[in-house]
Amino acid sequence: MEAREAIRRCLELAEYTEEPGHITRRFLTPPMRGVHDRVRAWMEEAGLETRVDAAGNLRGVSRVAAPRLMIGSHLDTVPHAGAYDGILGVMLGIALAARCRTCALEIAAFSEEEGARFGVPFIGSRAVVGDPVMDPPVLAAIRDFALDPACLPAAEMDAAVRGYFEIHIEQGPVLEALGVPLGAVESIVGLRRLDVAFHGKANHAGTTPMDLRRDALAGAAEWIGAVEREARAVPGLVATVGQLQVSPGASNVIPETAHATLDIRHAREHDLDATQAALVAAAERIAAARGLSVEAALRSRHPATAMDPDSVAALERAVATAGYPVHRMSSGAGHDAMILARRVPAVMLFLRSPGGISHHPDEAVLEEDVTAALDVGECFVTEWGKRYA
Amino acid sequence: MEAREAIRRCLELAEYTEEPGHITRRFLTPPMRGVHDRVRAWMEEAGLETRVDAAGNLRGVSRVAAPRLMIGSHLDTVPHAGAYDGILGVMLGIALAARCRTCALEIAAFSEEEGARFGVPFIGSRAVVGDPVMDPPVLAAIRDFALDPACLPAAEMDAAVRGYFEIHIEQGPVLEALGVPLGAVESIVGLRRLDVAFHGKANHAGTTPMDLRRDALAGAAEWIGAVEREARAVPGLVATVGQLQVSPGASNVIPETAHATLDIRHAREHDLDATQAALVAAAERIAAARGLSVEAALRSRHPATAMDPDSVAALERAVATAGYPVHRMSSGAGHDAMILARRVPAVMLFLRSPGGISHHPDEAVLEEDVTAALDVGECFVTEWGKRYA
Repeated sequence: MEAREAIRRCLELAEYTEEPGHITRRFLTPPMRGVHDRVRAWMEEAGLETRVDAAGNLRGVSRVAAPRLMIGSHLDTVPHAGAYDGILGVMLGIALAARCRTCALEIAAFSEEEGARFGVPFIGSRAVVGDPVMDPPVLAAIRDFALDPACLPAAEMDAAVRGYFEIHIEQGPVLEALGVPLGAVESIVGLRRLDVAFHGKANHAGTTPMDLRRDALAGAAEWIGAVEREARAVPGLVATVGQLQVSPGASNVIPETAHATLDIRHAREHDLDATQAALVAAAERIAAARGLSVEAALRSRHPATAMDPDSVAALERAVATAGYPVHRMSSGAGHDAMILARRVPAVMLFLRSPGGISHHPDEAVLEEDVTAALDVGECFVTEWGKRYA
Repeated sequence: MEAREAIRRCLELAEYTEEPGHITRRFLTPPMRGVHDRVRAWMEEAGLETRVDAAGNLRGVSRVAAPRLMIGSHLDTVPHAGAYDGILGVMLGIALAARCRTCALEIAAFSEEEGARFGVPFIGSRAVVGDPVMDPPVLAAIRDFALDPACLPAAEMDAAVRGYFEIHIEQGPVLEALGVPLGAVESIVGLRRLDVAFHGKANHAGTTPMDLRRDALAGAAEWIGAVEREARAVPGLVATVGQLQVSPGASNVIPETAHATLDIRHAREHDLDATQAALVAAAERIAAARGLSVEAALRSRHPATAMDPDSVAALERAVATAGYPVHRMSSGAGHDAMILARRVPAVMLFLRSPGGISHHPDEAVLEEDVTAALDVGECFVTEWGKRYA
């Protein structure tokens, strides 16, 4: 019943969109007002005291004076999104507040996580940890929403908050492949993004024998094979070549250059460093053997974020208590929990994503998995409260 | 001296261009008029009777009544060309006519070989073999040049022509790599051009483990490796993936599709067929193992053209007689000789291309190689004349 209502609420909020026919709701765009009105009403029904802070986060605090657990996720979406990414976590936080009225909870509905409006993610949660985004376009959007950037310092969490819990859809195929409804997230992976460019020599595809070629694409292809092999050799590591641009790009001309992107993710910095080094070395070795040159440039780097080990253990106990199989995993994508972990012990619970689909209208959840998440959440919140009693 | 003059004439003709600062002279564009004036003058100096046929070919016939050897190449260029592709062959034909005034020769300066103006190559030589291009834009260009398409049938070679000889730069790196100035061309390779498209499943680069991916680019990369290996396994065969387009093409998204082109060339149809079949099978095998689908479509197919074996043997004897090392080879690119071979025994002599460079302003020849080509040409023409005496 509560699970079905949480799903219904997600679908109701999907109607608040910048583009009719799609779900697109970026940071503090007009449809966010209607979302705030609906979510505020549900928070108040659950016994929470509400406010919208200067970063546009909608926050509902229970009237219990005790160390407080923040339960949060985000209300914004990517363009042409599904109905559950972020929103479901907020709806389940409110459902838990309604179930556990004696617990000291704060439900945080963050205004922005995806970075879709200004290319800057985590505008909401960064304000809550006291690191607000101060970019002029962000501040202008805050003013346009009739909020006051001067009040951003007051968005920071108060000292009573002692932990953070986030429920989110997995956005990947792992839990479904395992046949398991829930996962306890022990870390959010670190990321390295590189540009890798192979340079050879353009030449006539008919008149240049195979052994006199310096084919940049053939070199890049060999390297893509090495990327795949290296990634498979390190458990939990993923490496992706998502872009490859070939020049001059004519069917009868041997490729002169091949520009690839490389995205590597893993929960341990050490493994990221080692894989990055191995893949750059592989590119150089392959290029040298083929008379090519190669340039590899690191374009971005986000460190891995561990979740709080005690909180992960407590969440696993809650999963077991509620009668579900325990599966510990990493998150391959970034989440608000990554930001909150800077200030308080943080942990996440993942729900199985049917088809592994996310950031797409086909994004879904199973009602039975939502029920499981609520039962596990109740166990976790209750035990968490006892620790601070 | 004659070699230096032939090179000088090529450089002089390079001044007749559609684009100042570049060499661009497509089928019957205005600069072709000035080229005709200069080349006609040189033909007449060499004792030839000249005419421009209705396809815009400039033809110079010696005043010797005997079975005739046609020596030809083309006057048009690709955009931003070098100075020697085609033109050098015409200049050397004229130089041979001047040297061998007792031989019955026809020097054919074809109006069009590259296909750069209308996407249709061989407009000049096709008219000479009685297969004129009748596309309306081509006919309009003929009229604009003050020629009469109704006279195209008269462009056909007359019955006195019993053979065809073409001197051309190699446009590839083979002779230079061997340290040899000249090559006797025994065949012009056949060509197969295919589109090969791999289809997988786009997914999040962070949340999708390596073993749950269907990465179209990883499949295409493995196949590009197979293309290279198959090509190396067949002597003389070349296979090129010149284009590869990846979609959606974002660094953090697993590629859904990878569209490749495949260009395969070889002198024997049988080997082309076998390699084409093997590479399509390899694509299917790789796709199946990765949960991808693949579509391969044949986009064009040109059969291999053998040069006349007796003429090749005669040309090899001429190379040896003139004191140069004999090297027999295939042409990886198409030439007018391919068209002329439909009607008369045809053969080509290649000159070493420094750096293997062609279709580029850096295209070059060595004066000593031009001297060698003239000496070999004289031996060949003289012996050819004796055969018909």
